[in-house]
Amino acid sequence: MTHFAVWAPEGEAVGVVTTAEPAPMKALPGGWWEVDLEAAGPGTDYWFVVDGSEPLPDPRSPWQPEGIEGPSRVLDHGSFTWTDQQWHGCPAAWLSGGAVYELHTGTFTPEGTFDAAIGRLDQLVDLGVRAVELMPVNEFSGDHGWGYDGVFLYAPHHAYGGPDALKRLVDACHERGLAAILDVVYNHLGPAGNVLERFGPYFTARYATPWGKAVNLDGAFSDEVRAFFIDNGAMWLRDYHFDALRVDAVHAIIDTSAVHFLEEMVLRADDVSAAVGRDLLIIAESDLNDPRVVRAREIGGYGMDSVWNEDFHHALHALLAGEREGYYEDFGSIADVAQCLERGVLYDGRYSPFRRRRHGRPFTGLGGRSFVGFLQNHDQVGNRALGERSAALMTLGRLKIGAALVLTSPFVPMLFQGEEWAASTPFLYFTDHRDPALAAAVHNGRRAEFAAFGWPPDKIPDPQAPETFARSKLRWDEVGEAPHAEMLAWHRTLLALRRRLPDLTDSRLERVQVSFSEEDQWLRVRRGAVELVANLAPQPAEFHVGERATLELGSDPDVSLGGRSLKLPAESVAILSQP
Amino acid sequence: MTHFAVWAPEGEAVGVVTTAEPAPMKALPGGWWEVDLEAAGPGTDYWFVVDGSEPLPDPRSPWQPEGIEGPSRVLDHGSFTWTDQQWHGCPAAWLSGGAVYELHTGTFTPEGTFDAAIGRLDQLVDLGVRAVELMPVNEFSGDHGWGYDGVFLYAPHHAYGGPDALKRLVDACHERGLAAILDVVYNHLGPAGNVLERFGPYFTARYATPWGKAVNLDGAFSDEVRAFFIDNGAMWLRDYHFDALRVDAVHAIIDTSAVHFLEEMVLRADDVSAAVGRDLLIIAESDLNDPRVVRAREIGGYGMDSVWNEDFHHALHALLAGEREGYYEDFGSIADVAQCLERGVLYDGRYSPFRRRRHGRPFTGLGGRSFVGFLQNHDQVGNRALGERSAALMTLGRLKIGAALVLTSPFVPMLFQGEEWAASTPFLYFTDHRDPALAAAVHNGRRAEFAAFGWPPDKIPDPQAPETFARSKLRWDEVGEAPHAEMLAWHRTLLALRRRLPDLTDSRLERVQVSFSEEDQWLRVRRGAVELVANLAPQPAEFHVGERATLELGSDPDVSLGGRSLKLPAESVAILSQP
Repeated sequence: MTHFAVWAPEGEAVGVVTTAEPAPMKALPGGWWEVDLEAAGPGTDYWFVVDGSEPLPDPRSPWQPEGIEGPSRVLDHGSFTWTDQQWHGCPAAWLSGGAVYELHTGTFTPEGTFDAAIGRLDQLVDLGVRAVELMPVNEFSGDHGWGYDGVFLYAPHHAYGGPDALKRLVDACHERGLAAILDVVYNHLGPAGNVLERFGPYFTARYATPWGKAVNLDGAFSDEVRAFFIDNGAMWLRDYHFDALRVDAVHAIIDTSAVHFLEEMVLRADDVSAAVGRDLLIIAESDLNDPRVVRAREIGGYGMDSVWNEDFHHALHALLAGEREGYYEDFGSIADVAQCLERGVLYDGRYSPFRRRRHGRPFTGLGGRSFVGFLQNHDQVGNRALGERSAALMTLGRLKIGAALVLTSPFVPMLFQGEEWAASTPFLYFTDHRDPALAAAVHNGRRAEFAAFGWPPDKIPDPQAPETFARSKLRWDEVGEAPHAEMLAWHRTLLALRRRLPDLTDSRLERVQVSFSEEDQWLRVRRGAVELVANLAPQPAEFHVGERATLELGSDPDVSLGGRSLKLPAESVAILSQP
Repeated sequence: MTHFAVWAPEGEAVGVVTTAEPAPMKALPGGWWEVDLEAAGPGTDYWFVVDGSEPLPDPRSPWQPEGIEGPSRVLDHGSFTWTDQQWHGCPAAWLSGGAVYELHTGTFTPEGTFDAAIGRLDQLVDLGVRAVELMPVNEFSGDHGWGYDGVFLYAPHHAYGGPDALKRLVDACHERGLAAILDVVYNHLGPAGNVLERFGPYFTARYATPWGKAVNLDGAFSDEVRAFFIDNGAMWLRDYHFDALRVDAVHAIIDTSAVHFLEEMVLRADDVSAAVGRDLLIIAESDLNDPRVVRAREIGGYGMDSVWNEDFHHALHALLAGEREGYYEDFGSIADVAQCLERGVLYDGRYSPFRRRRHGRPFTGLGGRSFVGFLQNHDQVGNRALGERSAALMTLGRLKIGAALVLTSPFVPMLFQGEEWAASTPFLYFTDHRDPALAAAVHNGRRAEFAAFGWPPDKIPDPQAPETFARSKLRWDEVGEAPHAEMLAWHRTLLALRRRLPDLTDSRLERVQVSFSEEDQWLRVRRGAVELVANLAPQPAEFHVGERATLELGSDPDVSLGGRSLKLPAESVAILSQP
């Protein structure tokens, strides 16, 4: 027997279709409809019919084995055998001792599945990773895509292997001491296959998002709309054993309610944490530079654990790659990197030339662990016209400096799949829409976006082309080659150092002291008894260090420490201990 | 000589027109343009020309002597002779010892001017009023209107008498010990005469308001858009000596910036307060039930001083008038009034049937002074189809109970013009648009709005009809008649009691204790040694009181206290002291 339930507050007759005739459902207070079907059970395919509509998939479908246009399938979460009873959960302090590893299931392995990903986990453990962060796995249009245009948020993508395969992946992570983080998108839904409006007022015209209709989080019926998303987050944490959620683009979640949607998410995560007895984290991607997102609820914050540090990324990238286009206009000096390391963000209320307005406010009193720091992520790579990684945009020396700054930072460090070996493959924007009009719109939109930067249309890869997806897959066979092996070793060594030296995971930003010279192009970051010294100049440089300083590691064989003199070749970095 | 300046960040050539040829202005960084004209001075009429446009009034015009379509006029704020050097400003505790008196300049007196209003101030002082709150005085379409569709926010309305007359009114208030509060509208601008878009990106399509385009408070160029409004507030406080601002409909001010527009307003008011050496208050009208609006900045609030207590109004009105239509659906029990008195708001996170969602959060730790409490205001009267006041909707006995509950409440009490004598005149919705299409749209919109409640179109007064405005003017000649004189005396007596008994102005909500019976229709509000006892039933009732209780006042001659028994006739109220 299966209990079917769906929310359709303005429906007048709702039914569920399994094999033959629709079974009428009973209206409950609050706009829910329900029915128990004796003949249905795990594996039964079903649809809903609202007021005589064609059969529609379930907005809360747990499984869409045939994709967004197929039926929903009944799933029993109790049938999976978990082996992670000893798993310790994901305390923030523990997580900051390693790296988060962001991966896209479809391109992480040649197979592009959850099960195939399991085969690479040991390498991540060896690297020093402590958490795997999956880009959205919700059901989205077609067989491949980034996942941010999800439409069935409760259903793990069919082409990745569906629900049980995802559970196997999370279980395998926990078995190896890796936490599992899931990227969830609650600011909009994808354009194709979005049946939610057929069921209820999920969207509002009162606000706009860059990607389509805004979600109705504060209008009539919004309690259930909020619950749709918040229950979804709770499901991933409870039924799929995820340890953390990364909430996409919270700046596009417009909610004027007295209890903000994000605060309500955090409250629910607390409930789940208490119920499952594990530490859970809620991480934001935010373009707001607003400390409210991560401040404690007691002082008016939303209480999220960390926020992606975009300023730190932009400051690093602009400095190391020398780019100044688009939002990199706001960055570029060594001072910018210094301020991010000392105070979290650069834009703390100052004027942003790119935004043409003041931006942000100070994160006073918050620690480094309130931020996730990175040199690359899927967006920063994939939103480039040609999807180039940092390795294609800066010298090896600068790449190593960037890695050192991230992996010794006071933030929770994050790597994007393949970054650890400076993968040669791009990460392009790819889609698999089946609707030809939508496919054309995506391609043309992409061309128009980059035309603004002077790109000729024919240089822009077609997101719909199968080779765009194929080219984005990691080539694991290159890992052993130069310079990939060298870069992999560098990342591994840095992460080992992070585990070994407690000063590096000290979250207190007031203990970070940075000195630098824009003219001579060097930067020194002091963190307790540890000091990073970076020479960005195209020629060697010499630095005075303390008498008792010892060299922990250098990015170049010619890095040398003698007496009180540290010698750094052009574009190199050293890490010292000097008690 | 006059210094002309205007912000037009995307303009390519901007000039100022006085008598003859446009004088070209010089572009400054930040999008401002300026020029000094030797021949111009106070009293000179001028226009701006942007990129060859027709002459446009100044967005920051200090004076529009001919209304929204005429020229702007140069004004010298230094030329007015103020006599209020001894004025003490408006500390919140002092204000709560009297009442705020909301008035509409155009209907408060037959003449409808600032100067005419001065003639009535002594009566307000005699009543016990401590602050006069002017509905918006900014320049709006035509000669009369409510003022919420302002388009020249810096210009006092020409038909009210213009800048100097407004200063005379504020000066006369201060001379009599009255504070002056101004209603300002920063969530939208009026549809007619709105030239702001010709100068710069003041508006955004990213959000919608019920009244038109949302203001661009967080997009590109928004620093100057915010400054346009915030400088305006500062001008009223500094150059017109206002003591407080009442900010209209803050729920429609959508701003995702890390420093919310309202917080920035409060910061600026602090600057002005320091500069002028007076206590200033910032009061919100808010539909959010969000304590953040009035919480201290140190704990994530915006730091505003008070918020209009809509829940308290709705609870009182639904209880006393028995109405349940529209948003009154959410109210009606004595318990609702009790919760408002004890905890500020009723909707503190509970489900609102009218809104079809949960609403608000608790105002824990905040005091009564964080709220403005009222039985009527311009909206609650004027947004009714026929503009009826409470006096037309409930018995005299209940009206007196309502007044007693408001004027002994822990909130800052407020009266709406004429409420003190239960004025017989309605307060209707009236406009004076000169554009026939807009005039028709307003009339038809009003009809459609009330058609939803079953009103036939011909019963809805035409907002554009001169008699709609004329009928809304107070009739001061009725004040001496029954029952108006009795009501006036009741309000005066209550306010005298409020001044005399310190328990009534104790802001601590935890000291408010309410007991009640829905069945027997009574309510007792204990505030320290003072107790209000109200009998809402249609028959007399008897209450046990403390041995040492004394009767401070009763709303009916038959109210009697003997031994430990207080006898209240049907629909009456008494106030006791019982130490």
